[in-house]
Amino acid sequence: MAKFNYSKRVPADGTDAVGAILKAAADPSIISFAGGLPAPELFPVEAMKKATDAAYDEHGREVMQYGAARGVKEMRELVLQIVKDHENVVANDENVVVTNGSEQVLELAAKALVNEVDTVLVEDPTYLCAVDAFKSYGANLVGVPTDEDGLIPSELEKTLQAHPEAKFLYVIPTFQNPTGRTMPAERRQQVAELAAKYNLLVFEDNPYGDIRFEGEHVDAIKSYDKSGNVVYMGTFSKILSPGFRLGYLVADPEFVQKFTLLKQTADLGTNNLVQWATVKFYEQNNVDEHVKKISDLYGQRKALMEAGMKKYFPAGVTYTHPEGGMFLWVTVPGVDDTTELFKQCLEEKVAFVPGEPFYAGQPEPGHLRLNYSNMAEDQIDEGLKRLGKALANAIK
Amino acid sequence: MAKFNYSKRVPADGTDAVGAILKAAADPSIISFAGGLPAPELFPVEAMKKATDAAYDEHGREVMQYGAARGVKEMRELVLQIVKDHENVVANDENVVVTNGSEQVLELAAKALVNEVDTVLVEDPTYLCAVDAFKSYGANLVGVPTDEDGLIPSELEKTLQAHPEAKFLYVIPTFQNPTGRTMPAERRQQVAELAAKYNLLVFEDNPYGDIRFEGEHVDAIKSYDKSGNVVYMGTFSKILSPGFRLGYLVADPEFVQKFTLLKQTADLGTNNLVQWATVKFYEQNNVDEHVKKISDLYGQRKALMEAGMKKYFPAGVTYTHPEGGMFLWVTVPGVDDTTELFKQCLEEKVAFVPGEPFYAGQPEPGHLRLNYSNMAEDQIDEGLKRLGKALANAIK
Repeated sequence: MAKFNYSKRVPADGTDAVGAILKAAADPSIISFAGGLPAPELFPVEAMKKATDAAYDEHGREVMQYGAARGVKEMRELVLQIVKDHENVVANDENVVVTNGSEQVLELAAKALVNEVDTVLVEDPTYLCAVDAFKSYGANLVGVPTDEDGLIPSELEKTLQAHPEAKFLYVIPTFQNPTGRTMPAERRQQVAELAAKYNLLVFEDNPYGDIRFEGEHVDAIKSYDKSGNVVYMGTFSKILSPGFRLGYLVADPEFVQKFTLLKQTADLGTNNLVQWATVKFYEQNNVDEHVKKISDLYGQRKALMEAGMKKYFPAGVTYTHPEGGMFLWVTVPGVDDTTELFKQCLEEKVAFVPGEPFYAGQPEPGHLRLNYSNMAEDQIDEGLKRLGKALANAIK
Repeated sequence: MAKFNYSKRVPADGTDAVGAILKAAADPSIISFAGGLPAPELFPVEAMKKATDAAYDEHGREVMQYGAARGVKEMRELVLQIVKDHENVVANDENVVVTNGSEQVLELAAKALVNEVDTVLVEDPTYLCAVDAFKSYGANLVGVPTDEDGLIPSELEKTLQAHPEAKFLYVIPTFQNPTGRTMPAERRQQVAELAAKYNLLVFEDNPYGDIRFEGEHVDAIKSYDKSGNVVYMGTFSKILSPGFRLGYLVADPEFVQKFTLLKQTADLGTNNLVQWATVKFYEQNNVDEHVKKISDLYGQRKALMEAGMKKYFPAGVTYTHPEGGMFLWVTVPGVDDTTELFKQCLEEKVAFVPGEPFYAGQPEPGHLRLNYSNMAEDQIDEGLKRLGKALANAIK
């Protein structure tokens, strides 16, 4: 029995299935495609050190004193510039909040909107940590079907008609986690229109959008938003540093004001040091060039993945072909339980994340997520060889 | 009407009384004792820059990559050393979580423990932002009476008998906010014993304990804790930098494990840069000497406050005599509403924080909080002259 009397928000023991998986995959003899980390060899350590020095030199006392709950003004200005240049999102200072990574947006969005047991809509499958955040406030998650072009707007409309009480939709339109899929422009526009028509808040999460190695850029859903119902979420975790825990949202001023009250109560504000260091980094460096290096490397690794999967995977196994981001999604026919498959793969010394936990509704069988952003080139071929062997055994 | 449909956790409009007060006090012609900031002229900007450089040089990729939700291992080791050396708290690595300031401990403690409308016990008066955090999870706050020696253990026992369902007690035993008062050792031991006897969790918040300019150190309540029921909370905000948002807790391993799950969901972990910079700062500097400079300065300012209050305050007005920390507490006989008094003081171009919002129960009339840590020496005398004039008018 637990020693203390916890609230309903604390997950029950043994429910952290993915934590257990990542732990099992940490054995160094295992080639693990289960992680979700950026490639650390591309972290701009020296340039960031220089930028941080400039932050101390030019704004030392401001860096070290309490700051505004909404973030440093220069950081908010940088966010406005980025979303305009990259996503055609035109906004003003009153629309921005700086957060501890976009994970904090998920946490405080749920806190701001979800009473137990309000309905929240998510793509099926969707990002695991979002599910955890929403559930921690008692959300009843309802999955919206997706296909190779991501969220299906007609399915969203059907779901909204069945659940007019839904508090919000959470969606990752570009290089989705876990599938790697991207929604085309037309669908984005339709989602923005449905948000207005049904007065639905839409949280559009875009952690990977800048990491494109193929195809053409597609602007954010937020760029089509005329109602103010779309909340755009960004982060510096995949292009600069996840260790900085620096993210942001761009939203309707009323939502910003309410969200900021919760941000203030949660931690008084995001730490100033990483904000100022990032502002200075953008002043001193060509960040687009830096991001192109990341995209190029991930593109090479994704090409190695495709070559290996083609070579080693049994007939009938299919997979997505992401144009960017960090993950791809494999479908194994005839396998009902990829968590069981995971255990078999550990014996072959290879790991992935099973598909089941990514679903809000009934899981589609036979899926698994593979990461390539943090896979050394010389491990990809051998890892896929082992995985192919395990898959062949499982399909038999 | 609000555009979106918020949860019960979002405060109603117009309830941020203290925000309005701080805003009113921001007029530069006003001498404001209302703030709660450390003196920025003592921030060790150059030394922290050097420490941060060392963090990049020695641990660059680790600084920039995802880290553990419980914090950087070397940071946790530093915390264990500090609580042992300063507070006689002997603990192990399994007892520590690093957080975004101690404010985040308040937020996630409430999330971990409070179901609507669970009872939470606080000192009356207590820290405002703690009240906000607890209320945001639907807590029913019950005040425990205090006197010049802080929380009264016999009153705590009475309150526990009346509220055996109470989820936890929140207490600031040293240089309390808002009163500046300190609990003697005997009372601390009694609180630890009551925690064990009634299986009560106690959150002991110690942001100011190191800033002592008079009297003798008293060890933390946690140092008397044999049951594991006391959660000790610390921060680097008052001794190094509030802008870093760096705090921690030391607690029972079971609580640490549950709290870490919520920390993971809230923001995946505290940013690595401020953790490594702080670790390196302690390696490279004599922090005790740095903290002595802060204590000396605040002691001088508190002495100027006492001289000014003696000179300008009308007869009958009393005040606390803190031996450290940043605040003192004034009692004005015959004044029922210090929020009204605040408005009169704005006309005299002087500001403070009215006492009423600090109370969970029925406010005791006639109190106000004065800050001295961030008051320039040449403003203290003039500010107290203005305040004395306003008090004399109000008492008439």
